[in-house]
Amino acid sequence: MTLYLEDLSVGQIFRSESRVLTAEEMIRFARDNDPQYFHLDAEAAKASLFGGLVASGWQTAALSMRLLVEGPAPFAGGLVGMSADLSWPKPVRPGDSIRIEAEVTLISRSRSRPDRGIVSFRLTTYNQRDEPVQELSARVLVFARAGEEPH
Amino acid sequence: MTLYLEDLSVGQIFRSESRVLTAEEMIRFARDNDPQYFHLDAEAAKASLFGGLVASGWQTAALSMRLLVEGPAPFAGGLVGMSADLSWPKPVRPGDSIRIEAEVTLISRSRSRPDRGIVSFRLTTYNQRDEPVQELSARVLVFARAGEEPH
Repeated sequence: MTLYLEDLSVGQIFRSESRVLTAEEMIRFARDNDPQYFHLDAEAAKASLFGGLVASGWQTAALSMRLLVEGPAPFAGGLVGMSADLSWPKPVRPGDSIRIEAEVTLISRSRSRPDRGIVSFRLTTYNQRDEPVQELSARVLVFARAGEEPH
Repeated sequence: MTLYLEDLSVGQIFRSESRVLTAEEMIRFARDNDPQYFHLDAEAAKASLFGGLVASGWQTAALSMRLLVEGPAPFAGGLVGMSADLSWPKPVRPGDSIRIEAEVTLISRSRSRPDRGIVSFRLTTYNQRDEPVQELSARVLVFARAGEEPH
């Protein structure tokens, strides 16, 4: 099922499956995108603030959105982010199993382009101990059924 | 030169070198982290809102921070993000050359842990036409000289 603007309502909650993030995935992401020693090298990371390897916050952010769109909320035309506010209250460590809960907080259909709207979500990413590891408020573009995109 | 909290002042501006982002890099990032068709497939992306391949916003975010810390602002102990507000006013397309300008907007030394502080930055990412492609406000942890970390 593909979701359109008409399928969303304020207060609606989406919950994803859990997904384990491995040290290998963290290191691979870091090598390409955020090559800091506490994301790259488990041994060196012991001497860091974190006391061990942790995921880049950008990896947690991308994976959290992915858990939403590949799971409970497959938006028509894909997920196009306009803006995002993020915080990372706790680090994600190798082997942590993360999942998201996202709540629709605002829906505003475009007046000038009624085939689309902006939807605000509050998305929390939890680890296997149900501790929030990321809080994300995002504004995303969602297409209306009338203005369906070809994908 | 490594930067400590004492080396920063409000209003200080850091400017990075430019860096070209290729289609291959965009697709590679997307495959691992944000597999949506307008980040993955140049041909299919033509039918999207963007009219062609564009970089994932998370890739732009990670690369922008990397341009800061690998260039003009190598922070002692690395860059530890606490929170970030992002917007993406324009997409980044294959071959775009991006650079960042970051301004220190607030410095608050921790009272309970005077070996560190929280520094706020306003960081703008520009393309080769000097158009902003990302606005980022970030709060990052920066170590003071007295409390130097081993890395």
